[in-house]
Amino acid sequence: MGIMRMGYAHVRVTDMTEAKNHYASTLGLYETLEDTSPEGNKRVFYKGWDEWDHHSVVLEEGGVGVVKYGWKVEHEADIDDVEAKAKAFGLTVERMSKGDNPEIGDGIRFVTPSEHVFEVYHQATAIGTEVGTHNPEVFPRHLVGIGAPALDHSLITTEDVGTMERMLSDVFGFYATERVQTSLEDDHECVGTWMTSNNQIHQLAVIGGPQGKLHHFAFRLDDWNSVGRAADLMTMDDVPIDIGPTRHGITRGQTVYFFDPSGNRNEVFSGGYLAFPDRPRHVWTVDQIGKGIFYHDRELNERFTTVLT
Amino acid sequence: MGIMRMGYAHVRVTDMTEAKNHYASTLGLYETLEDTSPEGNKRVFYKGWDEWDHHSVVLEEGGVGVVKYGWKVEHEADIDDVEAKAKAFGLTVERMSKGDNPEIGDGIRFVTPSEHVFEVYHQATAIGTEVGTHNPEVFPRHLVGIGAPALDHSLITTEDVGTMERMLSDVFGFYATERVQTSLEDDHECVGTWMTSNNQIHQLAVIGGPQGKLHHFAFRLDDWNSVGRAADLMTMDDVPIDIGPTRHGITRGQTVYFFDPSGNRNEVFSGGYLAFPDRPRHVWTVDQIGKGIFYHDRELNERFTTVLT
Amino acid sequence: MGIMRMGYAHVRVTDMTEAKNHYASTLGLYETLEDTSPEGNKRVFYKGWDEWDHHSVVLEEGGVGVVKYGWKVEHEADIDDVEAKAKAFGLTVERMSKGDNPEIGDGIRFVTPSEHVFEVYHQATAIGTEVGTHNPEVFPRHLVGIGAPALDHSLITTEDVGTMERMLSDVFGFYATERVQTSLEDDHECVGTWMTSNNQIHQLAVIGGPQGKLHHFAFRLDDWNSVGRAADLMTMDDVPIDIGPTRHGITRGQTVYFFDPSGNRNEVFSGGYLAFPDRPRHVWTVDQIGKGIFYHDRELNERFTTVLT
Amino acid sequence: MGIMRMGYAHVRVTDMTEAKNHYASTLGLYETLEDTSPEGNKRVFYKGWDEWDHHSVVLEEGGVGVVKYGWKVEHEADIDDVEAKAKAFGLTVERMSKGDNPEIGDGIRFVTPSEHVFEVYHQATAIGTEVGTHNPEVFPRHLVGIGAPALDHSLITTEDVGTMERMLSDVFGFYATERVQTSLEDDHECVGTWMTSNNQIHQLAVIGGPQGKLHHFAFRLDDWNSVGRAADLMTMDDVPIDIGPTRHGITRGQTVYFFDPSGNRNEVFSGGYLAFPDRPRHVWTVDQIGKGIFYHDRELNERFTTVLT
Repeated sequence: MGIMRMGYAHVRVTDMTEAKNHYASTLGLYETLEDTSPEGNKRVFYKGWDEWDHHSVVLEEGGVGVVKYGWKVEHEADIDDVEAKAKAFGLTVERMSKGDNPEIGDGIRFVTPSEHVFEVYHQATAIGTEVGTHNPEVFPRHLVGIGAPALDHSLITTEDVGTMERMLSDVFGFYATERVQTSLEDDHECVGTWMTSNNQIHQLAVIGGPQGKLHHFAFRLDDWNSVGRAADLMTMDDVPIDIGPTRHGITRGQTVYFFDPSGNRNEVFSGGYLAFPDRPRHVWTVDQIGKGIFYHDRELNERFTTVLT
Repeated sequence: MGIMRMGYAHVRVTDMTEAKNHYASTLGLYETLEDTSPEGNKRVFYKGWDEWDHHSVVLEEGGVGVVKYGWKVEHEADIDDVEAKAKAFGLTVERMSKGDNPEIGDGIRFVTPSEHVFEVYHQATAIGTEVGTHNPEVFPRHLVGIGAPALDHSLITTEDVGTMERMLSDVFGFYATERVQTSLEDDHECVGTWMTSNNQIHQLAVIGGPQGKLHHFAFRLDDWNSVGRAADLMTMDDVPIDIGPTRHGITRGQTVYFFDPSGNRNEVFSGGYLAFPDRPRHVWTVDQIGKGIFYHDRELNERFTTVLT
Repeated sequence: MGIMRMGYAHVRVTDMTEAKNHYASTLGLYETLEDTSPEGNKRVFYKGWDEWDHHSVVLEEGGVGVVKYGWKVEHEADIDDVEAKAKAFGLTVERMSKGDNPEIGDGIRFVTPSEHVFEVYHQATAIGTEVGTHNPEVFPRHLVGIGAPALDHSLITTEDVGTMERMLSDVFGFYATERVQTSLEDDHECVGTWMTSNNQIHQLAVIGGPQGKLHHFAFRLDDWNSVGRAADLMTMDDVPIDIGPTRHGITRGQTVYFFDPSGNRNEVFSGGYLAFPDRPRHVWTVDQIGKGIFYHDRELNERFTTVLT
Repeated sequence: MGIMRMGYAHVRVTDMTEAKNHYASTLGLYETLEDTSPEGNKRVFYKGWDEWDHHSVVLEEGGVGVVKYGWKVEHEADIDDVEAKAKAFGLTVERMSKGDNPEIGDGIRFVTPSEHVFEVYHQATAIGTEVGTHNPEVFPRHLVGIGAPALDHSLITTEDVGTMERMLSDVFGFYATERVQTSLEDDHECVGTWMTSNNQIHQLAVIGGPQGKLHHFAFRLDDWNSVGRAADLMTMDDVPIDIGPTRHGITRGQTVYFFDPSGNRNEVFSGGYLAFPDRPRHVWTVDQIGKGIFYHDRELNERFTTVLT
């Protein structure tokens, strides 16, 4: 099967106290571990209420941007398979040991053509959810703030979208559900690509921009109502909103973009449609990119292309 | 990859005129073909607005209940793979020819231990959607009635749930996201199982009951708001509601059960959560089955176990 | 102007500890006072988060059913006006003193033809809301359970609906927004009437039944989403649901009926439409009362007419 | 009782063909009359699906901005009462004859201190709604586009907000539910006022700006879901969105501001809370006006204060 989902996003924050307030009190993530990295940086690990693995978000003090992404594979053997494909693609792969990341098993690590660090693993400590698995209630009785259930996806930038799309396809078995192209006919000039290996409308999207940068990482919400309520809570908590509540044309998702106290862009995301590999790809042309990204405003704000971490 | 999704549900209806009114005007499906079966029965083919293959629902005049289900595989070679596994399971498999079903390619056909007919195919005529794939709008401007986007899943009955679960696991690569058991510990006594091969919380569920029967087949809606509006429209259109709007504890889905004019049970379904094979299975005990099925009422109505077609 | 709104519903509960759990933890009302009545009964006073007067619900230990309703008038002089009209209607009116009800000013009290006690007052201690009135947030950051914003309306029974409707019209200046009649033409046989003095679709509804009984009193919610979430929380808190989530044909409101631990029926209610005195009245015939009350089920459950307190 | 509600908004449009497309196809209003004004201008009359009077919106070709507002009073005698109060306030009042406006009875007309024309009337031809009043369905089966149920309120500008607020209070019996002031203490410097005579959170709001100008007029929707869907449809129909979907801090309403083809600003509005004259007024200070107007963005866009018609 290959990649099952984005297991964790590990990001840098400038100030851990502010960051904890944001991710725990406003987003309502559950803190599962606080430690110090081998380099001596404070780290805090979080999961959403509907995630059962030990963590899906790691904050590390010192700077901004993404440190790395963890990708969970379905079977132990998938690690070797991905490794072989990564090497075949020309990537330099190193082995990652159990414990390199707390509560995460061994696996592999490589730097993508976009200069992002990817880790691939199979094992994570399952700590379960508050509602449990035996005759479970449909959500926990006492959620905090937005109460985000789970990490959903991320958007990154690279100077060469086409190569990154090829890598995700060849190595991870991803397919593009939506694309922004300079023309409908010529799919070689890919300005942005929304990719997935499963039925999530995207697990990782890639657009043109500097190497190694984070555009945003997103949390999944139930519906438009939750998206609206999240925006209300952001105002109460003085969280800067980038845009929204609004809708994306691309993915059809309903969304708020906002910033954590360090300036990393977050998103709450709901809706979208079920992706299938045989579903005809949605193709957007560059002249309609405004509508594709922000369906209601129909034009990009300047921050969309310039504010990255 | 094996099974990608339930591609079509082919059901019998007693009166085609009434049935067309229900599936086209109330549910808002798009009629894509009307023909006569080799046996001389009227047939009508439908798809939801967000489906691109030729049809997902087939109505055939004469009786009630399910004729067969079509399962679409990702790759042509998956057909052979499923065939081999089906034979290994002890099933009698026959080849199905292109044109046995209009606009559907060749494949295989077998009768399940539950006495339901399954067809497995790879090719279907892609006819696309009203919004298209080039800079598409997020939904069609003029939907009819409920405007159901897509077929979602089905629930069938069998005398031996355990064997059927094993077949779906061994032959289709399905896994159970939720189960009803006589006890938490002993998973041998499986009273019901909700199974999937992808991130849909279920593609096919199986509960104890007579062989070969249909409990319901379901259409996917966006959210709780759409579910409530669907119930309003059913009242306007004199569609008998079985139960709902309400929620399932099992799958967390939000739902209305209702009947087509022939007495086949339909469902509109939204929500649920993303299924993953590593997600700890939800297990319900029989004493909590009322809450599991109808989360708000917390007890089954008599129809749930007795009205089948 | 006359009656501004139902200011409080004062009801009996058999067990105060259980009742407090229900009204405070599940419904999320704010306790504003606990005292002992002159008769020696424990009492607890509550308000919703979006109410500014001292209380809107009073629980008094000992039995079930409604003790009395308080109706707040806009101007001090309205009390005298209502008194005069009540006497003209033939009712026996007594003066009520400041302090007869904690934090409520003086006014009048009378027994209606339906044998319910009504109090009319102008002054109540304003204690405000958690969000305040100066650059207020749109809701409190930390609501409990359902977080009901406010008391909305009540439904009572009487042997003579027509007389009660006339009293509410003549004395309170109410008008009927919707009615159930034995025929469309003959409005003398009124089986039920939904009445208001303002733009709320109803403040008090009256249906045929025993004298002096409570059918339910209701809390206002924002929308269908809140109604659905309320039902989920009731399941988590083991609150018996009578019916719902569903919709009323009458008032178009979206609703859950449920019971407090003493057996008094509560409702959460959203939607409806703005009432205006010049709006043509909705008239329902008895043969359609099922659809009028429960729009989706289209038939009354037996409890609707028999379970009263 | 005085003023019951804003009965109609009569506005100018530059091109009637474009305007009809907007108000009928996108907003889904029902055209009830097309005629030519005494001055020879084309006029089209509309009502929302849930309004029973002949019209609530009048479009007149030639220019932009508001021609006049019609205010409906509950009783015939209220016209004289308002006339007396208007004269006492120092306004010049003229009598308006039945037929000055099609399907509207006689009444009075005066120019406000803000230089807007107000008409006050009691009688309008009741043409009812598609669902009728006898065992009515909860909404019409076939709505077009946004399907706006009703006109809700308007916002106008004037050089002297304080005087206009006093006029609305003295002549119309309105009270301010929310206000923007230069300070919390000093209520003499009123920058904006949101006023009503009933439980609608506002019927008319007034902010500082040029005399006689229209900021927007608004249609009522059911909920946040309808607001989001309305924004989607605006995109499909190429309607320029000013801002939204978002929320107002003032009124708590959920909203989209958008422009008709002539440049008049419209709004779809849902939510808000029930106004009562004894409810403590919400007071916003000028430094928080951004949050008051656009709760999520927390700052005004330039258009808010400059684009008027």
